[in-house]
Amino acid sequence: MSKDLFKKELAKLNPYVPGKPIEEVKKEYGLTDVIKLASNENQLGPSPKAVEAVKNELKNMNIYPDASAMELRKRLAEKYGLDSDNIVVGNGGEQILQVITQTFINPGDEAIMAKTTFGIYANTVLHMGGIPVKVPLKDYKQDFKGFIENINENTKLIYVCNPNNPLGNIVPKDEIEYLVKNVPEDIVLIFDEAYYDYAKVNPDYPETLDILKKRPNTIILRTFSKVTGIAAVRVGFVLTSKEIATEMGKVKGTFNVNRLAQVAALGALEDQEHVDKTVEMNYKSLNMMEKLFDEWKLEYVKSNANFIFVDVDMHSKTVFEELMKRGVIIRPGYLWGWDNWLRVSTGTVEQTEKFLTELKDILNK
Amino acid sequence: MSKDLFKKELAKLNPYVPGKPIEEVKKEYGLTDVIKLASNENQLGPSPKAVEAVKNELKNMNIYPDASAMELRKRLAEKYGLDSDNIVVGNGGEQILQVITQTFINPGDEAIMAKTTFGIYANTVLHMGGIPVKVPLKDYKQDFKGFIENINENTKLIYVCNPNNPLGNIVPKDEIEYLVKNVPEDIVLIFDEAYYDYAKVNPDYPETLDILKKRPNTIILRTFSKVTGIAAVRVGFVLTSKEIATEMGKVKGTFNVNRLAQVAALGALEDQEHVDKTVEMNYKSLNMMEKLFDEWKLEYVKSNANFIFVDVDMHSKTVFEELMKRGVIIRPGYLWGWDNWLRVSTGTVEQTEKFLTELKDILNK
Repeated sequence: MSKDLFKKELAKLNPYVPGKPIEEVKKEYGLTDVIKLASNENQLGPSPKAVEAVKNELKNMNIYPDASAMELRKRLAEKYGLDSDNIVVGNGGEQILQVITQTFINPGDEAIMAKTTFGIYANTVLHMGGIPVKVPLKDYKQDFKGFIENINENTKLIYVCNPNNPLGNIVPKDEIEYLVKNVPEDIVLIFDEAYYDYAKVNPDYPETLDILKKRPNTIILRTFSKVTGIAAVRVGFVLTSKEIATEMGKVKGTFNVNRLAQVAALGALEDQEHVDKTVEMNYKSLNMMEKLFDEWKLEYVKSNANFIFVDVDMHSKTVFEELMKRGVIIRPGYLWGWDNWLRVSTGTVEQTEKFLTELKDILNK
Repeated sequence: MSKDLFKKELAKLNPYVPGKPIEEVKKEYGLTDVIKLASNENQLGPSPKAVEAVKNELKNMNIYPDASAMELRKRLAEKYGLDSDNIVVGNGGEQILQVITQTFINPGDEAIMAKTTFGIYANTVLHMGGIPVKVPLKDYKQDFKGFIENINENTKLIYVCNPNNPLGNIVPKDEIEYLVKNVPEDIVLIFDEAYYDYAKVNPDYPETLDILKKRPNTIILRTFSKVTGIAAVRVGFVLTSKEIATEMGKVKGTFNVNRLAQVAALGALEDQEHVDKTVEMNYKSLNMMEKLFDEWKLEYVKSNANFIFVDVDMHSKTVFEELMKRGVIIRPGYLWGWDNWLRVSTGTVEQTEKFLTELKDILNK
């Protein structure tokens, strides 16, 4: 088969490596108890109201989803004071990111992003023949001065991951204002706020809806996969201008969001209690980790997400494997080129204790 | 906002118009009983084993899906005598079609298909800047001589919809053989077999797996949305060469197939009983319709799918609306430029009777 059959140089891609499944680790290491703090899942479990909603919908599993996700978009519009035409729902945030580049990127177009950030941005830009322009972090932060210096006539998109993944730190209001002021209005600014409900407890976290109201070329990306705990069914969404929503709607795929996902999201939207409990558990877990990291004199990034990024002063591949043998799966930093760092999702108190106990032992602290 | 922000001429698109939801029709026409024979859904309901499998998985709704859909691909590989590396699973057949053009179509590339066929082919080709080359049907059939005459150095893909949608007729073995013999090996041949389990009862229906074994640039597309009745959760898949599966895997998206969909499909694969019952009901319904169409002297296309295409000798928009007032939703042919034709999905015996009774009245038969 001739190789030029295939599109573009997909070989350049650095495909996203998902965390190892628990079952696989159990088998590989002969373990019965394994916890996974690698994929930023909600360890409190799914929203009970979401589960209930799905249960009630199972009888309709033979029926195609509502292509327009009308009920869900209406509810989201009410929640955010927008019109349902401002909202596009996707098969998880990841599909939304694909739809964004399918809508905006022609071959040769450029997209600016941090060098260390959510890897899917660069991949989806490459899929469309675009060029990801990666700006190194500065003091662990997304360097907006660097972003602005890299803008040229080919720049179509700018990605801001807030909080940034895998670091967990937020970009405060004033820096977002600086960015908005200095980016030409025809460039689409994407605020990926997958961890919004965790981050907004920080008073410095910006309310980007206010930016959207004044700047139509703005896309705010959020998800039901994190705080509401329904990652399994895949629901992400954007808040954006009607013009952008219309164009994205043309490429999203007719039935991109499955029926059970739509009702699960609707259930989750009624379940503030689960969100509150989750956020509370999250900061309890973060505090536990920060306290011991301080004690052990490990450098870490202040997090407002449901994970923390920590320098363990040992190669992360080694620590990753040692932890796995002991039944704890985390995400090693070498995957992002941060050899001695770990990204650890927050767990229940018991899970976090287990992780800290094993890490202490491995690091001889 | 400047219009050239947006990619390509998406305005050219003829977006897929999904069937009207039952609830909407009930509200609009003040009806309590409405049946929908418009979207080729399984009116027997979802596979009970699929429903059971989903129920058992709800506790894990906070956990991301298996990105590789390993269990499902393994089971499918066993079923079809292939390796799991020959299989790619998608968020419904529609996403698979998107992944195909993302893998193979560069701007200016051409893709050959019938003029009347599943509309998503052309849309996904246009999304990638490609050119859909539409060959008119001949005697209601996909004209492979015409396909071959249209091949040139830009041709990347050829779509064969078998059975063809919306007509329902199959392409028999000998015509498929003729096509395969006359298409250069470097062009990817796509056999969309969404209605495979219905069609294979016809002894003339080809076994394209045999073609795949000799011709690597072949993609066979199948789905769980039709005969197994789990359209709600979206699972389509392809059987293809390992080379193509690898390339498609790079653009499919990490978590494209949701967790509940994967377990539903696994459940459905164990439920041959439901498939058998569905196929039986299908041909009962088709026979009922054919018998009366013959009596009423209406022209129709011989179907091996779960729908039938019939010329009612009256504008389909009128018949569509009249039927809707009476609580029956079908798909009017004018959407495909076949003004006097209807596409009617097979229903239960009662549903089919209801449709025929109302149609008889409308047509004064």
